[in-house]
Amino acid sequence: MSAPAPAGDSGHTDRAATMAQFTETRALSLRLAEPLSPEDQILQSMPDASPTKWHLAHTTWFFETFILKPHAAGYTEFDPDYNYLFNSYYNGVGERHPRPQRGMLSRPPLDDIHRYREYVDEAMAALMEDNAAWPVIAPLVTLGLHHEQQHQELLLTDIKHALSCNSLKPAYQDALMVPTVPSEMGWVDIDAGLVEIGHHAGNEAFNDFAFDNEGPVHKVWLEAFRIADRAVTNGEYLAFMADGGYRSPDHWLSDGWDMVCAEGWTAPLYWEQRDGDWWQFTLSGMRSVDPNEPVCHVSYYEADAFANWAGKRLPTEFEWELAAPGHPVSGNLMGAGHLHPVSAGERSGLRQAYGDVWEWTGSAYRPYPGFRAAAGAVGEYNGKFMSGQMVLKGGSCVTPDGHIRATYRNFFPPHARWQFSGIRLADDQS
Amino acid sequence: MSAPAPAGDSGHTDRAATMAQFTETRALSLRLAEPLSPEDQILQSMPDASPTKWHLAHTTWFFETFILKPHAAGYTEFDPDYNYLFNSYYNGVGERHPRPQRGMLSRPPLDDIHRYREYVDEAMAALMEDNAAWPVIAPLVTLGLHHEQQHQELLLTDIKHALSCNSLKPAYQDALMVPTVPSEMGWVDIDAGLVEIGHHAGNEAFNDFAFDNEGPVHKVWLEAFRIADRAVTNGEYLAFMADGGYRSPDHWLSDGWDMVCAEGWTAPLYWEQRDGDWWQFTLSGMRSVDPNEPVCHVSYYEADAFANWAGKRLPTEFEWELAAPGHPVSGNLMGAGHLHPVSAGERSGLRQAYGDVWEWTGSAYRPYPGFRAAAGAVGEYNGKFMSGQMVLKGGSCVTPDGHIRATYRNFFPPHARWQFSGIRLADDQS
Amino acid sequence: MSAPAPAGDSGHTDRAATMAQFTETRALSLRLAEPLSPEDQILQSMPDASPTKWHLAHTTWFFETFILKPHAAGYTEFDPDYNYLFNSYYNGVGERHPRPQRGMLSRPPLDDIHRYREYVDEAMAALMEDNAAWPVIAPLVTLGLHHEQQHQELLLTDIKHALSCNSLKPAYQDALMVPTVPSEMGWVDIDAGLVEIGHHAGNEAFNDFAFDNEGPVHKVWLEAFRIADRAVTNGEYLAFMADGGYRSPDHWLSDGWDMVCAEGWTAPLYWEQRDGDWWQFTLSGMRSVDPNEPVCHVSYYEADAFANWAGKRLPTEFEWELAAPGHPVSGNLMGAGHLHPVSAGERSGLRQAYGDVWEWTGSAYRPYPGFRAAAGAVGEYNGKFMSGQMVLKGGSCVTPDGHIRATYRNFFPPHARWQFSGIRLADDQS
Amino acid sequence: MSAPAPAGDSGHTDRAATMAQFTETRALSLRLAEPLSPEDQILQSMPDASPTKWHLAHTTWFFETFILKPHAAGYTEFDPDYNYLFNSYYNGVGERHPRPQRGMLSRPPLDDIHRYREYVDEAMAALMEDNAAWPVIAPLVTLGLHHEQQHQELLLTDIKHALSCNSLKPAYQDALMVPTVPSEMGWVDIDAGLVEIGHHAGNEAFNDFAFDNEGPVHKVWLEAFRIADRAVTNGEYLAFMADGGYRSPDHWLSDGWDMVCAEGWTAPLYWEQRDGDWWQFTLSGMRSVDPNEPVCHVSYYEADAFANWAGKRLPTEFEWELAAPGHPVSGNLMGAGHLHPVSAGERSGLRQAYGDVWEWTGSAYRPYPGFRAAAGAVGEYNGKFMSGQMVLKGGSCVTPDGHIRATYRNFFPPHARWQFSGIRLADDQS
Repeated sequence: MSAPAPAGDSGHTDRAATMAQFTETRALSLRLAEPLSPEDQILQSMPDASPTKWHLAHTTWFFETFILKPHAAGYTEFDPDYNYLFNSYYNGVGERHPRPQRGMLSRPPLDDIHRYREYVDEAMAALMEDNAAWPVIAPLVTLGLHHEQQHQELLLTDIKHALSCNSLKPAYQDALMVPTVPSEMGWVDIDAGLVEIGHHAGNEAFNDFAFDNEGPVHKVWLEAFRIADRAVTNGEYLAFMADGGYRSPDHWLSDGWDMVCAEGWTAPLYWEQRDGDWWQFTLSGMRSVDPNEPVCHVSYYEADAFANWAGKRLPTEFEWELAAPGHPVSGNLMGAGHLHPVSAGERSGLRQAYGDVWEWTGSAYRPYPGFRAAAGAVGEYNGKFMSGQMVLKGGSCVTPDGHIRATYRNFFPPHARWQFSGIRLADDQS
Repeated sequence: MSAPAPAGDSGHTDRAATMAQFTETRALSLRLAEPLSPEDQILQSMPDASPTKWHLAHTTWFFETFILKPHAAGYTEFDPDYNYLFNSYYNGVGERHPRPQRGMLSRPPLDDIHRYREYVDEAMAALMEDNAAWPVIAPLVTLGLHHEQQHQELLLTDIKHALSCNSLKPAYQDALMVPTVPSEMGWVDIDAGLVEIGHHAGNEAFNDFAFDNEGPVHKVWLEAFRIADRAVTNGEYLAFMADGGYRSPDHWLSDGWDMVCAEGWTAPLYWEQRDGDWWQFTLSGMRSVDPNEPVCHVSYYEADAFANWAGKRLPTEFEWELAAPGHPVSGNLMGAGHLHPVSAGERSGLRQAYGDVWEWTGSAYRPYPGFRAAAGAVGEYNGKFMSGQMVLKGGSCVTPDGHIRATYRNFFPPHARWQFSGIRLADDQS
Repeated sequence: MSAPAPAGDSGHTDRAATMAQFTETRALSLRLAEPLSPEDQILQSMPDASPTKWHLAHTTWFFETFILKPHAAGYTEFDPDYNYLFNSYYNGVGERHPRPQRGMLSRPPLDDIHRYREYVDEAMAALMEDNAAWPVIAPLVTLGLHHEQQHQELLLTDIKHALSCNSLKPAYQDALMVPTVPSEMGWVDIDAGLVEIGHHAGNEAFNDFAFDNEGPVHKVWLEAFRIADRAVTNGEYLAFMADGGYRSPDHWLSDGWDMVCAEGWTAPLYWEQRDGDWWQFTLSGMRSVDPNEPVCHVSYYEADAFANWAGKRLPTEFEWELAAPGHPVSGNLMGAGHLHPVSAGERSGLRQAYGDVWEWTGSAYRPYPGFRAAAGAVGEYNGKFMSGQMVLKGGSCVTPDGHIRATYRNFFPPHARWQFSGIRLADDQS
Repeated sequence: MSAPAPAGDSGHTDRAATMAQFTETRALSLRLAEPLSPEDQILQSMPDASPTKWHLAHTTWFFETFILKPHAAGYTEFDPDYNYLFNSYYNGVGERHPRPQRGMLSRPPLDDIHRYREYVDEAMAALMEDNAAWPVIAPLVTLGLHHEQQHQELLLTDIKHALSCNSLKPAYQDALMVPTVPSEMGWVDIDAGLVEIGHHAGNEAFNDFAFDNEGPVHKVWLEAFRIADRAVTNGEYLAFMADGGYRSPDHWLSDGWDMVCAEGWTAPLYWEQRDGDWWQFTLSGMRSVDPNEPVCHVSYYEADAFANWAGKRLPTEFEWELAAPGHPVSGNLMGAGHLHPVSAGERSGLRQAYGDVWEWTGSAYRPYPGFRAAAGAVGEYNGKFMSGQMVLKGGSCVTPDGHIRATYRNFFPPHARWQFSGIRLADDQS
């Protein structure tokens, strides 16, 4: 995920709330890293993932680069090398350290990164008290916090992958024990119509924020459709596997089947079979696969193949947004502490819409009509990602609370599996 | 391109016309191969391309497999091995020869392929006279002919690539000399509204045919937009190049820029610089790049980057379809004999909409709402291709006459450049 | 194989014999290509292999470039492009067509290559009659003929690979039927001593020729050893396979085992199992694997692993040369017409030393002490190949008669399998 | 480098000396790791290199696996997982952690590895006091210590590569300042003769040890030759570069030139040009290239190309061994503390034979005549590496004192450059 521009720039109202949010969000990042040793925090298990330490530094670099350096008079940067080391941006802000080599950054040591965070946090605290600066920086602070929340999710997602590469299969935390219950999949019917999609302007307060790619609001015509009232479970996915799901190209997109063959996929990522039973690696170590929990760590290809096998389809991102519950958002998000999807509760509306697993939609990630990327470096990389990726909706069990909403558009390539990604079915009416 | 199912199955009316079309289409394939020696016809210069000989055989296999074998009583297949050798389908119709190895098929010799075509054509002629069989096979014949037309375009597209790999840069044909004239780019304004997109059923006559992916007809809301009245020229593209188009990531999609760097792109495919001037390989050999001709052999990435650089955008496939002229279709298609795009004529409506170059749209190739792939092998591969590809519209200078229409949806991966693909700009109104 | 310089330059005596040899060798190349269609002759199935047509042209280019152009007054080259197209040399003689793209050379057509051969042969015939030129060109003619013989072997070796890629498994020729008989492996004992290795100078007559890498003659100390009196058979190799030869790393070199795993090797090249029986592709099509024939198309890795498994080792190139029978050379060479190894005859000395299969030795291909590459283009590529390759001895069933001798050093990378390469065992005495 | 079997098994005499050596060698490994943080010690910058932590653990695993577990009654292994994690052996001792994934081992933490070392050292100390066990384990202890010395060199070699990947170019230690002086290259002449090569048995005392691949002693015939009396300098190598050394294939082996082109080599590894001057990364950070120091971090390909350019050749491993000074070994080894090659001293015999840089020889790494790999796991991997690698002689500035001798055979693939490898020239007499 990139760090896109905020979608609007109207006046900001609530400084105290934002400052509190700043303190809380910055502290959460450190708290997430706490169970990890300095050695853990340097791990980079694949080019797409980043070390914990890098996430801690890069989110700090964001505040330093886009707020302190342009707006804090007399600010001295912590270390000029950091602009090169912790910059994820191609172009607007100078050269950057090659992404696949982030795991080579044993220096600067973790302690320096901690000092970097403190240094920047203090400078930010002072600047946020500055009445003259506040109106200018307010939208950037809000953006920086949402950017950091994205990296909090990635921090957990990436460290899960890194720990899974260790044959000791170490746990990040102890498991929370939850009762798991079966529950039928139901359907919600929605009528045809010309609907409005996307997020309205006026989003500078932290809680009213949206990324620029969630707008502009625009009209979309939708035919009548149905959408499943919960995510697809491991049990349902095991039936697909048992029916030869991974053994014949019948239900797969052509490039999906090529991937199955090239990578030798036979199950979701992190699953392994032991004595005939399926186990999966979680942030609490190896666990037996629970048939009632949502299936997780599947690619778009697998989600699409499953839907075809089931005689259904994936929802479009518009259908999903229209069907999703509005405020207040609730669900099995990071704050619930599971860091793993849990079984659906009793039937009532669209269950598991927020949290648990990101839900692949059948929509390619494209800019909304009328979208223009903001000028300059802060916004430059939003438009950069818009090709060959699919939209996911609803957040997951590692999405920070307060970060997700109905209009949120996440996006990944169709083969990506290391995100907490799952499946919700949809269908045409009639 | 695959061989999708016909979009409908209503009654067929004009047998004589179809039979004439059969004769003509089948003869055209051989005529296209005529300038090529048996040695030329076995060339396969990359896995995505196929040898001329393979195109000749595969299109014949289609009629044998889907029409003669199921519907011609007592039909004896020409050679049982051919089902394996000339089958492009994954699954429904048995194993197939690996695609990247098609250039290894020196046997069967070209003479045998010619005999195969005659054998099948004779059997088809007899079967089409059969009054009982006709209603059943009519839609399949029409489908088979449109399938063969797709391969006629590919035959020229693929042999162009193959000949370009020979350092002698041999010509496929002599160039037609045409006067080339500069012409301003104008704009066509179109109002907002809820429009219908796609092809209506009732398409079994050859001229009323559409592939299944062109339907169902469905409503789309479009905001007011503008669309350029001609394709982008080489001259305009040279200005992009001169302005550092290929030297900085500014205007590029992230994966587009990665491709520029990885492949070392500095110009469209087939261009090379000699003593400071740009030349391009054409089906008539090397030619100086003409500033008035449409730029051709650019990827979606290049088309998108050019549009960003120009402060515009690509049209969506819906905008393109809405703006395109209706019947009768005309333009610089294969029949014009240039086999190369030509400069736009005098201003009048949407010039160069059909023929010259396929025009990349900003739309990812996805099924239309309500689309379901037809059951069975004939239709099975349409849905298979719907991921990570972009829609192109309008046909090119190597598209057979009669094969293109406003609803036609071509699609290729965003990095593909060996098709005759170019650029038309669009913009929001206001 | 490259085209090394002749090892000496003493006076040449027998012009008539050389001219006869010229006629015969040049005619043999065409005869070898005769069963192949123009389409067959353009096939290139892997970068290491070349099309038949290229072999025909390249061997001709050698005479034109190194003899006619420098030594035939007033000679006009056939086509200036050919120097680029048919040059296999990096450096001394200008740019060259990229090796992996040789299969793209549909133009010039085969007919032109035939005319090229005639044109050069005529010019050569005239030049060889020239008394003044003869002493200068004689060693080059001899070299050119041995160079052409190398390519005759490659022509058959490469076309075998190309035809094997066609699922029709077409035959190059009909099989010669030969009785096949089992025969024990015996051993020949050889004493320790300081021996002379390599070819003496005075090699300009065709029959006394040697490549430069066969000299200088030099002393080598050898301990007492034993060498098997015939090649390892398919039957013996099948026992290795049955004992898990390809299933555990026990007997393999480290990089050999990596290759087994990466390539999924489970048998020699061209072998496939049908209903539990092993078949192999030959120049006469698919045949059942005969337990009495020498195993063929194994890599050095497989040869070495087999020897380890058998509790033996491969001979060094010095041991092999010392043990080999002297003049006259005889065996199952190309002239015997089998183009496939045959079972060993009755026991008598070192059977199958010449012909049947090239025998991998345990010697890395390095220059002999005192070796210096000849200056200039003719010799430049001999030294170029001396790294990471292993020496093979004795020729094969596709080696032209008259081309092989005890001092001949062939060399290929340890993973190469498409040559007609097999195994002879050796052991220390005591 | 692997851990080969000791070359002999005669009676062992000096227990106290070995125990002292044990203490010293084990302590040295920790001392080498001391300047490195836990984060540094997990770095793995390429599959061929290993993290510092892994070296510390693997050398300990060796003593546990081959001495304590079989020979210390009642020994309890430290952690059963370690056999999998820190085993570098394919086959004899169970499964192992994939080599390219060693950098993922954040767990067990470094502290555990330190405890592991203490635990094993204590058990070893006790076992070595055991009179009954001593005769059995003595040769294994000696082997284990030489094995650990190999890994001490690799530890420095690998961390140099890892630190070089950090754009901060951090130093491992401060540089020792040494005066650098120019010195002519002289030549040493050696007569022809039948010589003995290799290490005699009786090698169980630490100082009389040799690896099995250094034997058996065998006779080799050598012609008269000359060998340079010092290593090639940076200044001499810069002349090669200035003469277009990396810009034309003239002096290169064919596969060497392919590597130059594929990798874009223009200088030795770790060199970079800044404002026209050449700098190199060292264990003391970036330094200007000193023309008097030996050139270092060149591949065999570069060494061979340089020698050809200079009109000389590389020595064979036999020539090198014959020419090398005998006991006592001295030179710029690890103990000198430079960890970087230094300029040659005044002329006297074969300078820089030991230490400074490993010297590529023209000999492929093959077993000596009569060599048989020892049975069982300790010895199993010696023979495994004998293909496609070249022999290096003499040790380097990171070779532990006491580890090198004239008969020592190091070996690496011809493209390897991350070792401290350089060049010594040789030539034929006459």
